[in-house]
Amino acid sequence: MSDKAIINEVGLRDGLQNQPITVDTDTKARLARLLVDAGMRYLEPVSFVSPKAIPQMADAAALTPLLPKGDDLHFPLHYTALIPNLKGYQLAKEAGYPTVALVLSTTDSFNERNLRMSLEQATQSCEAIIAAAKADGIATRTYISGAFACPYDGPVPVTLPQQLTERMFAAGSDEVAIADTIGAGNPQQMKDIMAPLIREFGAEKFYVHLHDTRGLAAAMAWAAADLGVRRFDASIGGLGGCPFAPGATGNMATEDLVYLLESAGLKTGIDVEKLRAAVTLAQEATQRPLGGRILSWMESQEKQGKTPCLW
Amino acid sequence: MSDKAIINEVGLRDGLQNQPITVDTDTKARLARLLVDAGMRYLEPVSFVSPKAIPQMADAAALTPLLPKGDDLHFPLHYTALIPNLKGYQLAKEAGYPTVALVLSTTDSFNERNLRMSLEQATQSCEAIIAAAKADGIATRTYISGAFACPYDGPVPVTLPQQLTERMFAAGSDEVAIADTIGAGNPQQMKDIMAPLIREFGAEKFYVHLHDTRGLAAAMAWAAADLGVRRFDASIGGLGGCPFAPGATGNMATEDLVYLLESAGLKTGIDVEKLRAAVTLAQEATQRPLGGRILSWMESQEKQGKTPCLW
Repeated sequence: MSDKAIINEVGLRDGLQNQPITVDTDTKARLARLLVDAGMRYLEPVSFVSPKAIPQMADAAALTPLLPKGDDLHFPLHYTALIPNLKGYQLAKEAGYPTVALVLSTTDSFNERNLRMSLEQATQSCEAIIAAAKADGIATRTYISGAFACPYDGPVPVTLPQQLTERMFAAGSDEVAIADTIGAGNPQQMKDIMAPLIREFGAEKFYVHLHDTRGLAAAMAWAAADLGVRRFDASIGGLGGCPFAPGATGNMATEDLVYLLESAGLKTGIDVEKLRAAVTLAQEATQRPLGGRILSWMESQEKQGKTPCLW
Repeated sequence: MSDKAIINEVGLRDGLQNQPITVDTDTKARLARLLVDAGMRYLEPVSFVSPKAIPQMADAAALTPLLPKGDDLHFPLHYTALIPNLKGYQLAKEAGYPTVALVLSTTDSFNERNLRMSLEQATQSCEAIIAAAKADGIATRTYISGAFACPYDGPVPVTLPQQLTERMFAAGSDEVAIADTIGAGNPQQMKDIMAPLIREFGAEKFYVHLHDTRGLAAAMAWAAADLGVRRFDASIGGLGGCPFAPGATGNMATEDLVYLLESAGLKTGIDVEKLRAAVTLAQEATQRPLGGRILSWMESQEKQGKTPCLW
């Protein structure tokens, strides 16, 4: 099993999309730069959604050219754009994104609120987008949203995300992200969902996307890592939540995920100390207190006049 | 593997021993009663240590007769007294404790500060206490303190807690508790330490004792549960820390551990909702904000006018 772990920073997208304050485009670009400076190589900075529905993301096309460029920096940067439908897909394609993230929720209720589609309609919509992307040479990552629980219908049987995953791979999705959108899952459920999928498709095809709503994100991330999952979403400072998912407060904080994975011997390439500048900027931009648990500990050490020693 | 999990409440001991405020005996007894009312059946309410060193525990003998009695309640209650040495053992025996908890730290530095003994002296002291307890028919649980890291010497190789565990079982200890006293461990380390020990001695012989200093307690508890461990320490509201271990803030909160284990399908017999009264009393008694992550979530739900639905 590889000891290299990939963290995909979704703070600029999932983190900012439901903030009462719409962060300006330049600040977003500065935040992306600070994240890249800290070692982040995978970022989901935008979503091409209706600016009426989510005004915080209205600058997706404007932000894109301002993002740090791998060519300038002499290392590859991997950007993904979230898209809700074919229209969003076209915009992401025009903006030059090499990877798009699709969203398929597990229930009729959740798809209805998110996309105004039934589960079957949303599934077919994803299949159509995947086909279009395949024809265009654009990679696809399909999020199985509410894979653990639906904000409207409650807990979801493990067979449901498994079946949707199989259908998305059958349609040609390059990757699938298993998402605990409202942070209501648990590590046993992670095992029960993922173990059969990993046996069937291989761990390298999967992302895990967690929210720390009830305090179990680290335990769930570990359960996934222990099964061989090496790709995770996270959000700087724990910024985030889903505007259409009541109770979905706070993605798993990037710094906490880096600390968890690195402490367990995996290599993320990301420097927790350097992430602090990004947390500070995200706090200033959103005017709310942010920061994962490892930052609280580092700050408490510093208050006692000590230099926090992470490793 | 059993689906029954045991949580040993150490809030009254590990939780209160380093609070600036010494909680009075009657309040401690009330707190024990609230914990038992919530379903707690295993409690470590006292330690028989020097009242000069730890004045917060000076009322150990006075508190003991005030604790809820299983005979009155018609269900068994399992009490443990922590003891640092043979003198403490005698006091615990006189007070009628059926189980004593011994402490063996992993390094010379830590034993020196805790017990004014070298590692070898402390090991022999534990062996002597275990022999005395065996002769008296008193059960022993030996804590391997600093099993993941020492507050003075840093990370500890996994072979060290393993060797000390083997020696304690060889001496006749009934149980061993693997303790991340300063909350600096990680779930991979938990696996590396515990998996061989469980193969050798069986999961039912082990407790795991965690501090959530750096935010990894839930991940480590899950790593242990996933290996079959079914016995855990926890502290109401996350109260706690070790007076001789700098940086050891906060045991894993009882309510977070109950939520983790129950959500994953294990049966603790403890009611998170009913634990809230104990958290409130612990807050009042120590005059500091307390409460695990699941309580923060429940409170945020209530602020939004919703009834938190845990399961």
